[in-house]
Amino acid sequence: MAKNVQDKVIGRICAEAGEVYARIRARKKPQMKLPLRSLANVRYRPQAGHFQLRGKNKIRTLTVNTVKTFAQSLKMLAMSKELIQTHRHSTKREAYYQAYNWGEAAFAEQEESDTVMDDIEAMLATNREQLHFRADEHGGEVAGELIVIDRDRRTKKLIEIDCAKFGSGAYSVPTVVEELEFRTAAKFILAVETKGMFERLVEEDFYDKHRCILVSMGGVPSRACRRFIRLLADRHSLPVYVFTDGDPYGYFNIYRTLKVGSGNAAHLNDFFCVPQARFLGVTPEDIIEYKLPTHPLKQVDIKRAHDAVKNDPFIQHYKPWQQAIEKMLKMGVRVEQQALAKHGLEYVAKEYLPKKLKQAKNFLP
Amino acid sequence: MAKNVQDKVIGRICAEAGEVYARIRARKKPQMKLPLRSLANVRYRPQAGHFQLRGKNKIRTLTVNTVKTFAQSLKMLAMSKELIQTHRHSTKREAYYQAYNWGEAAFAEQEESDTVMDDIEAMLATNREQLHFRADEHGGEVAGELIVIDRDRRTKKLIEIDCAKFGSGAYSVPTVVEELEFRTAAKFILAVETKGMFERLVEEDFYDKHRCILVSMGGVPSRACRRFIRLLADRHSLPVYVFTDGDPYGYFNIYRTLKVGSGNAAHLNDFFCVPQARFLGVTPEDIIEYKLPTHPLKQVDIKRAHDAVKNDPFIQHYKPWQQAIEKMLKMGVRVEQQALAKHGLEYVAKEYLPKKLKQAKNFLP
Repeated sequence: MAKNVQDKVIGRICAEAGEVYARIRARKKPQMKLPLRSLANVRYRPQAGHFQLRGKNKIRTLTVNTVKTFAQSLKMLAMSKELIQTHRHSTKREAYYQAYNWGEAAFAEQEESDTVMDDIEAMLATNREQLHFRADEHGGEVAGELIVIDRDRRTKKLIEIDCAKFGSGAYSVPTVVEELEFRTAAKFILAVETKGMFERLVEEDFYDKHRCILVSMGGVPSRACRRFIRLLADRHSLPVYVFTDGDPYGYFNIYRTLKVGSGNAAHLNDFFCVPQARFLGVTPEDIIEYKLPTHPLKQVDIKRAHDAVKNDPFIQHYKPWQQAIEKMLKMGVRVEQQALAKHGLEYVAKEYLPKKLKQAKNFLP
Repeated sequence: MAKNVQDKVIGRICAEAGEVYARIRARKKPQMKLPLRSLANVRYRPQAGHFQLRGKNKIRTLTVNTVKTFAQSLKMLAMSKELIQTHRHSTKREAYYQAYNWGEAAFAEQEESDTVMDDIEAMLATNREQLHFRADEHGGEVAGELIVIDRDRRTKKLIEIDCAKFGSGAYSVPTVVEELEFRTAAKFILAVETKGMFERLVEEDFYDKHRCILVSMGGVPSRACRRFIRLLADRHSLPVYVFTDGDPYGYFNIYRTLKVGSGNAAHLNDFFCVPQARFLGVTPEDIIEYKLPTHPLKQVDIKRAHDAVKNDPFIQHYKPWQQAIEKMLKMGVRVEQQALAKHGLEYVAKEYLPKKLKQAKNFLP
C-alpha cells in the first residue's frame, strides 16, 4: 500500500513536470494550476464532515514576475521526487537550507519555502508528508491494544511494535505516518488532551480492561497525531472518542480541529480531519452530574464561545453543541479533566469513563 | 533497587510524622525542619558539577499562623505514602483536586499545593517523583542501543522495551522514571534539541552505526528527560554529548539546564542535573569550519549572552565557554542544527557528527 502511494505521488510530480516541458517544447508559456487557498474557496460539507475546496483555481504562468517562484516550485518538486526515491524525509527547515544551493532561486526566508511547499501540496492534491516533507513537531503518544507495523531502517524488514508492551512509557508517533500499517482488535480509540490523564489511564490499566487504544494529543493535536488517528480509525472502522477539559480551548481548539480541520487548510482536511470523532467530555452537564470543582470562565473563554456560536459553521450545524456552549456560558465556569480526581485518582477510570461509554450515542457530535 | 527507594522514602515520611507525634505526646509544639530554598542558601560546586544547598534551615513550628500549612504538609505526606503503597502516581494538578476533600485544609490555588509539595520534597531530601508526584509534561523520546526494563501493569512482570525496534517512531519516556532499569552496550548518549534532528539521525541509521542512544529533548529538557539521562549515564558510565542550535537558547536554556540545573531548585540538582554532559555543537567555530548559513543575533540573544558572561557562575567557571560566547557576539550571528542540511540531508550523520566525535575531548565543558 505504502508503495502505491509513493508511485502515485511520483506519477503526479512527473505529470506536472511533463506538462511544463511539453508547453515549452510547443513554444507556449509554461504554467501551473493551483487551487485557491482562501476561505472564499471553501465550504462546509456536513456529509464529508469537514471544510472542502470549492474548486476555484489560479493559473501561475511563467513571466518575469513569477520566474523565481516558478523555478522554486519546480525545484521543490524535484526535491520531493528525490526524497521519495531515496527513502528520506526532510523537515520544512531542512528543505529551506537545502535550497541554499539553488543560486538565484534560493529562499530569503523559511516562510517563502513553506509557501511554495503549501502550493505544491495543493497542486498535487496530496499532503506534504506524502511528498516526504515533515514538520518539526511531536506526533502524540500511544498505548493500548494496537500493533504498529513499520520497517526496520537497517534490515528493511517489517517490524511489529506492540503498544501494550511499554509499561509506564508509550509509543511516540513519528511525524510521518503515511507508511505505517496497523493490526488491532480494539473497540475504540480514546484521544485525551493531556499527558497527565494519559498516564493516569495507563496506570489504571484502562486500555486493557476496555480493549481500546489510548492517544495522548498533548494539547492541540499535531498533523501527525491527527493523521495517525484518521488512518487508524478508517482502516479498522474504529469509533474515536475525545476527552478534553471542559472549556472553549478543549471544545474548539482541540476537538473541532481534530474533527473538521481548519478553514485555511481546506485542501488538507481530506487527510487530517477525523470525521468519526465524537466528544465524550468533560461537558458542562458533567459538572453537575459528577459534582466537579470548577473555575470561572476567563474573558477570552467567553469571547471565544460567543464567536463560535455566531460564526463557526461547525457549531452552527449542530444544535447540541450550541446548547452545550450556552449552558457553559450560563454557568460561567470551566472544568478540567483532572477535576475528577476529587473523587479519588481511580475514579475517572473506574466510574466516570465506564459510565460515559455506556451512553456513547449521547456524545456530542 | 526500586523497592529500596520506596522503602527509604516511606521510612523518611514515617520518621517525620513520628517526630511530630512524639513532640505532641511530650506536650511540646510540633515542628518541621525545611532547608531554605533561596539563592542565599546556594553555592556552585564545580566538583559536584552543580549548585548545592549551603545547609541553612527554617523551622516551621505549629502556631495559629502556620496551622493550615502545617496540616497541609502532614496531609501531603500521608497522600504520598498512600500513593507509594498503592503503586500509583498523582500529577500535581490531581493532588490539588484530591485535596478538595481536606475540609479547611483544602488549597485555594494550585500554587499553594505546589509550594507545599516543594517543601516536603526539600524536607525529605528527595524528588517529588520518588514521592509519586509527577508533572504533566513530556519526557522526551528515545531510540537506539538501549533496553528499558519496566513492569507490566497487568501481570506485574518485568518487560523489556528495545529502543532499537521502533522503526521511524520512538520510545516515549514516562514522566516518572525512578523505577526503570536499563541494559545497554552503547558507547555514548547523544541528546539533541529538536525532534526534526532526532528523526534525521534515526532515518540515517546513526545510532546503529555509532552504537549510541539518541534522546530528543524537545527544547529545554523536562525533569523526566533530565532524570532519565542522568540515571542512564550514571548507571552505565556513559558520556553524554549535547547537540543543539548554536544560539544562547541552546547554550544556556538547554545545555546549561541539563548540565548544572538551576539556582532556585538547588535541592533537586542532585537528581536532575547531568554533570557528565559535554557540548558537541553547533559552536561558533563550526560556522566557519563547516561554512554554515547563519542568522543575525536578536537583541534578546545579545542580552542573554552578556548577562551570562557577567553573572552566570557556570560560565564564569569555564574559560572555553567565555571564549565561545565572545566569539559568537563578535560574529553577531546564530546558527541552527538544521543548517547542516545545506550540504545535503545526510551530511550531519555522515560527516559532521563522525568528525566531531573523533575530537570529543575538545567539546565545550
